[in-house]
Amino acid sequence: MTEQTKKIGIVGATGYTGEELLRVLARHSGVKVAFVTSEKEQGQPVQQVFPQLPAYRGLRFISASEATSQSVDLVFLCLPAGESAPLAQPFSENGVKIVDLGSDFRFYDAKVYEQWYGKKHPAPALLSETVYGLPEWNREQIRGARYVGNPGCYPTSILLALLPFYRQGILPDNTLVIDSKSGVSGAGKTPSRITHYVEVNESMKAYMPGRSHRHVGEIEQELSRFANQAVNILFTPHLVPMSRGIFSTIYMPLQQQVSKQDLLQILHAAYDQEPFVHILDAAIPSTAMAANTNNCFIGLNVVESANHVILFSAIDNLGKGASWQAVQNMNIMLDFDEEAGLI
Amino acid sequence: MTEQTKKIGIVGATGYTGEELLRVLARHSGVKVAFVTSEKEQGQPVQQVFPQLPAYRGLRFISASEATSQSVDLVFLCLPAGESAPLAQPFSENGVKIVDLGSDFRFYDAKVYEQWYGKKHPAPALLSETVYGLPEWNREQIRGARYVGNPGCYPTSILLALLPFYRQGILPDNTLVIDSKSGVSGAGKTPSRITHYVEVNESMKAYMPGRSHRHVGEIEQELSRFANQAVNILFTPHLVPMSRGIFSTIYMPLQQQVSKQDLLQILHAAYDQEPFVHILDAAIPSTAMAANTNNCFIGLNVVESANHVILFSAIDNLGKGASWQAVQNMNIMLDFDEEAGLI
Amino acid sequence: MTEQTKKIGIVGATGYTGEELLRVLARHSGVKVAFVTSEKEQGQPVQQVFPQLPAYRGLRFISASEATSQSVDLVFLCLPAGESAPLAQPFSENGVKIVDLGSDFRFYDAKVYEQWYGKKHPAPALLSETVYGLPEWNREQIRGARYVGNPGCYPTSILLALLPFYRQGILPDNTLVIDSKSGVSGAGKTPSRITHYVEVNESMKAYMPGRSHRHVGEIEQELSRFANQAVNILFTPHLVPMSRGIFSTIYMPLQQQVSKQDLLQILHAAYDQEPFVHILDAAIPSTAMAANTNNCFIGLNVVESANHVILFSAIDNLGKGASWQAVQNMNIMLDFDEEAGLI
Amino acid sequence: MTEQTKKIGIVGATGYTGEELLRVLARHSGVKVAFVTSEKEQGQPVQQVFPQLPAYRGLRFISASEATSQSVDLVFLCLPAGESAPLAQPFSENGVKIVDLGSDFRFYDAKVYEQWYGKKHPAPALLSETVYGLPEWNREQIRGARYVGNPGCYPTSILLALLPFYRQGILPDNTLVIDSKSGVSGAGKTPSRITHYVEVNESMKAYMPGRSHRHVGEIEQELSRFANQAVNILFTPHLVPMSRGIFSTIYMPLQQQVSKQDLLQILHAAYDQEPFVHILDAAIPSTAMAANTNNCFIGLNVVESANHVILFSAIDNLGKGASWQAVQNMNIMLDFDEEAGLI
Repeated sequence: MTEQTKKIGIVGATGYTGEELLRVLARHSGVKVAFVTSEKEQGQPVQQVFPQLPAYRGLRFISASEATSQSVDLVFLCLPAGESAPLAQPFSENGVKIVDLGSDFRFYDAKVYEQWYGKKHPAPALLSETVYGLPEWNREQIRGARYVGNPGCYPTSILLALLPFYRQGILPDNTLVIDSKSGVSGAGKTPSRITHYVEVNESMKAYMPGRSHRHVGEIEQELSRFANQAVNILFTPHLVPMSRGIFSTIYMPLQQQVSKQDLLQILHAAYDQEPFVHILDAAIPSTAMAANTNNCFIGLNVVESANHVILFSAIDNLGKGASWQAVQNMNIMLDFDEEAGLI
Repeated sequence: MTEQTKKIGIVGATGYTGEELLRVLARHSGVKVAFVTSEKEQGQPVQQVFPQLPAYRGLRFISASEATSQSVDLVFLCLPAGESAPLAQPFSENGVKIVDLGSDFRFYDAKVYEQWYGKKHPAPALLSETVYGLPEWNREQIRGARYVGNPGCYPTSILLALLPFYRQGILPDNTLVIDSKSGVSGAGKTPSRITHYVEVNESMKAYMPGRSHRHVGEIEQELSRFANQAVNILFTPHLVPMSRGIFSTIYMPLQQQVSKQDLLQILHAAYDQEPFVHILDAAIPSTAMAANTNNCFIGLNVVESANHVILFSAIDNLGKGASWQAVQNMNIMLDFDEEAGLI
Repeated sequence: MTEQTKKIGIVGATGYTGEELLRVLARHSGVKVAFVTSEKEQGQPVQQVFPQLPAYRGLRFISASEATSQSVDLVFLCLPAGESAPLAQPFSENGVKIVDLGSDFRFYDAKVYEQWYGKKHPAPALLSETVYGLPEWNREQIRGARYVGNPGCYPTSILLALLPFYRQGILPDNTLVIDSKSGVSGAGKTPSRITHYVEVNESMKAYMPGRSHRHVGEIEQELSRFANQAVNILFTPHLVPMSRGIFSTIYMPLQQQVSKQDLLQILHAAYDQEPFVHILDAAIPSTAMAANTNNCFIGLNVVESANHVILFSAIDNLGKGASWQAVQNMNIMLDFDEEAGLI
Repeated sequence: MTEQTKKIGIVGATGYTGEELLRVLARHSGVKVAFVTSEKEQGQPVQQVFPQLPAYRGLRFISASEATSQSVDLVFLCLPAGESAPLAQPFSENGVKIVDLGSDFRFYDAKVYEQWYGKKHPAPALLSETVYGLPEWNREQIRGARYVGNPGCYPTSILLALLPFYRQGILPDNTLVIDSKSGVSGAGKTPSRITHYVEVNESMKAYMPGRSHRHVGEIEQELSRFANQAVNILFTPHLVPMSRGIFSTIYMPLQQQVSKQDLLQILHAAYDQEPFVHILDAAIPSTAMAANTNNCFIGLNVVESANHVILFSAIDNLGKGASWQAVQNMNIMLDFDEEAGLI
């Protein structure tokens, strides 16, 4: 275990994932936030932008370009697609480890990135060194990684529920249907028609249905990797009137009859030693269970007459779905207790 | 068109569907509410129980047993399963028409009722005279019916989206997956852990998944009837932190490639003459669109690579999903303009 | 009563008050919406911008400059401060009556407008002809008015509760404290940090406290006019996580002991003949009671030991607080039944 | 500082304050929860009742009568008025320290308790030993106390804002008006009409206005004690559609002109060394700032023309308003770092 205080930087710290990182890191006794960047707020005290975070008295936002020369142990990047990779390189050259909460380091193949993001990857050479930061499934690679691509919120909820089965060759007999529901913080902090209170409140709807959401690429990459074969999904996200939380309902047609007991056992075998993934044997999780934590709760229902298992997975999109999982990755990369700051 | 004011009664008028009926009927120039019943509030002025409904000054709740002898034109029954049918009979013997917002008159076969409700139907003989009250599909039978079973909220949203296809033989190639999301008023007015504000707010979850919710029976009955063959579904309802609204996402695997244009045309052919069902050619509906109305909005997305159509259907569960649809049925049964009071 | 269909225009029809006007007018059998304007959406079908309003099939947004030449009976102006008056004049010259939902016609004295809005009134000459559109208190002047300034949402809730007392010389002995709470639609439809779902949800706070909100001017103008003396208030509005509704809590120190019975009688005398103002003798109103209606509910509590009466007033800020009251004004100005379309 | 792990019990652990205590204590490295009681859930594993709290694997609910004989260092009592004191005594006789989150230990005078709670105090003799558990104002007495009465949620928000002034003799010139707004968890976990999601959502209202809420007694006791004279208040609480948070708006008429700068300085002098009370010099706090923390945020506005200061105070009603403050008290009583577990 690390004894010495490690220095941490956050690039793009004014959005929801940046704020949540600050909240979590304030509880982590092994780290000190050395800098936070914001192009818009540079020069401003953190306390003015986030009065709710009194722990950061004295810290001021700086620009990203000022930050790259700073000597820290690890940097979290909270930037839009295409902006992380160019910044990651100069940090990395100074020996700084990178956890990217955006999407630039989530793909092993730049072509897949281009297919889903509609633009060239800004630094494809780096992808040979990146690790998909889902600790329960890639822990050892994360430990030594220079670049970790922190998973998307929807993919985290879905992969944690499916990977135990895919790894064992329990694959859907037919189209896998994933119906996910997200709180509004997943849409980011920039004000828009979509996130206006009156438009969201007392309303819900689907968006980017079928195969149009970018997270499809990420989900299929990891499912295929663990299944050792190419797999495809149908994925429809929905916007729900709540601030935080993702609930994924996964309809998996089974190739052969498998009992609920057997399916539960597969989940337990995968996660009983894990601190943050919890199997509910006889209940359906809710997003509230996971709110403000790094936990994922998974339940299931077997419909024998239809030869289907329905999986339920609940996380906090800013928790296990973003910033808390990013700190879990940091804990692994910097040799802290994996639960440090996350309880 | 009816010229004369018709007299209306409401049995079980203190719940959410009863209150909503009172709200709608206050706007209907052709009717007068002659009585409202409540065992708990009998003797109380409506205005004390519902100060928000000043139109009913002077009216007091009476008991159901007092009501059955009253001479009215039509009665709405807002009662739990098993309680409507016994009360319907004495009203009907006096020539009173019945719209039941409960489930006793939604099935043609008492055995199907028993299968889904876990108890004997209280008056199976009446089922030969009942009509499933989905006006867009059963209008002519509703017109002359003595008993109309007003559809459940989930079934309304789902059947309106699927029946145009099932009627034409466009059936799912494989398991049809329906993922529905409901506001909390659908859970009724009785306080419980489930409906406590703090339990619902900032949370969402599935309940009664797969084939365990009672509405499965009703949905399969009508789908099978119009498809002329037995059909089965997977149906998972979810509770969402909002008061009103149902959003159904329906994943239908197609037997053969059908274009979006063709599918839209089928929907338009079914509903372009209908005042309350609206097809969105290029958008996904939201529940807010339908709030406080009798409207249903339907959209769709075709995923060619997966040979699926995803249907989206949004209603207000107390609107088209309950009380407003009940008034639409009343309008048909009493020969009013079908839109009277519903705009 | 008017027999013939009247033609109505709405300028600035894409905001929340415009949309609500369209919703209400669709139920009004005596009017036809002849035009709606929007600089941003000009040329677009209403149905594309508001799919939730199927009644307006065929209508398209035009620009305000195109509208002024149209021959209609009455125009609703839904524009920011300073933009209504310049447009009102050309309409008025064509004999069109004006109901302004903005603030340009709420003041009798251009200096008072300037004091609260921080800019010159754009057409002070028109103010001699304007009427403050609170029908319960200015009905006769509204009937013949060319210009009606529809009251602000906070002022409506506050004036309806206080004017019965001020008119009778029952004035506060000391500083009158008004603590109001508003839903978010009152902040308008333009996306901003303030109206972002995640900022509003699960949060509440005061804003523009004391004497800094513009509505203070309007409230004091009308209180002073009916009290026949200059009066001052303390007014602190709050933003509450709900879409609609205003709740005002008014703390009035009494000059002399007055019983609850006497105070209630004053309210009843003022409003028992009014269709939209309802006195609760023994309960405290809630905003939900008034949602989606033109109603105002008033309750009170007398604290004898402190010689105070606490008044409670609840409205829908888009209902009696804006668009529904605007239609009430229209009904008076065009000689319709005052309740037409508003039940 | 304490080195050794202390043993803690929670009586009445299934309500919202009990659950929140469990959540906070899981992060406190110096304590171990030795028992939790619930008459209703006795025998059940904590994990079944609270699957969201995986830290308590292995712990089961026991009955309160089983608990009293257990050897622990401190017990939190989360019980209704009148039930804490009888249980506190047997614990105390075993040397167990008590933090009562109910109201039995908040009063120094049993008569005042009786006046506000409408019943005899169950153990008036204990009141000579109790301390009102507001650490910023009674820290030294808390340190040695056997019984600490953890303050009510409203009183905490109000007293923290007012005591700095009252202590210095800056008292209201006239009636002090306090208008408070609370989230719904303050109403407790028992399902009722009041807490039904559909009744609360999209609604707000006042309740128990003026001088009828029980917290008035507690607020006046502490204000009077620090002012060295009897003081009276007007206090109106409101229910707001959010789960957590209290916002108090306090209207204080000043006896003499005092500048904003002077008032701010008094607040800073009182709290700049305090870890949990934060003064906003130039902003108004919101409840969201304090959510899930032990923080209180205070802001103010001076209205010179009306000679008033308006104070704003925001806390989390389950945080500084209940369970987190209870842990702060525990930290003082057991000689932990006062911030332990509370960051």
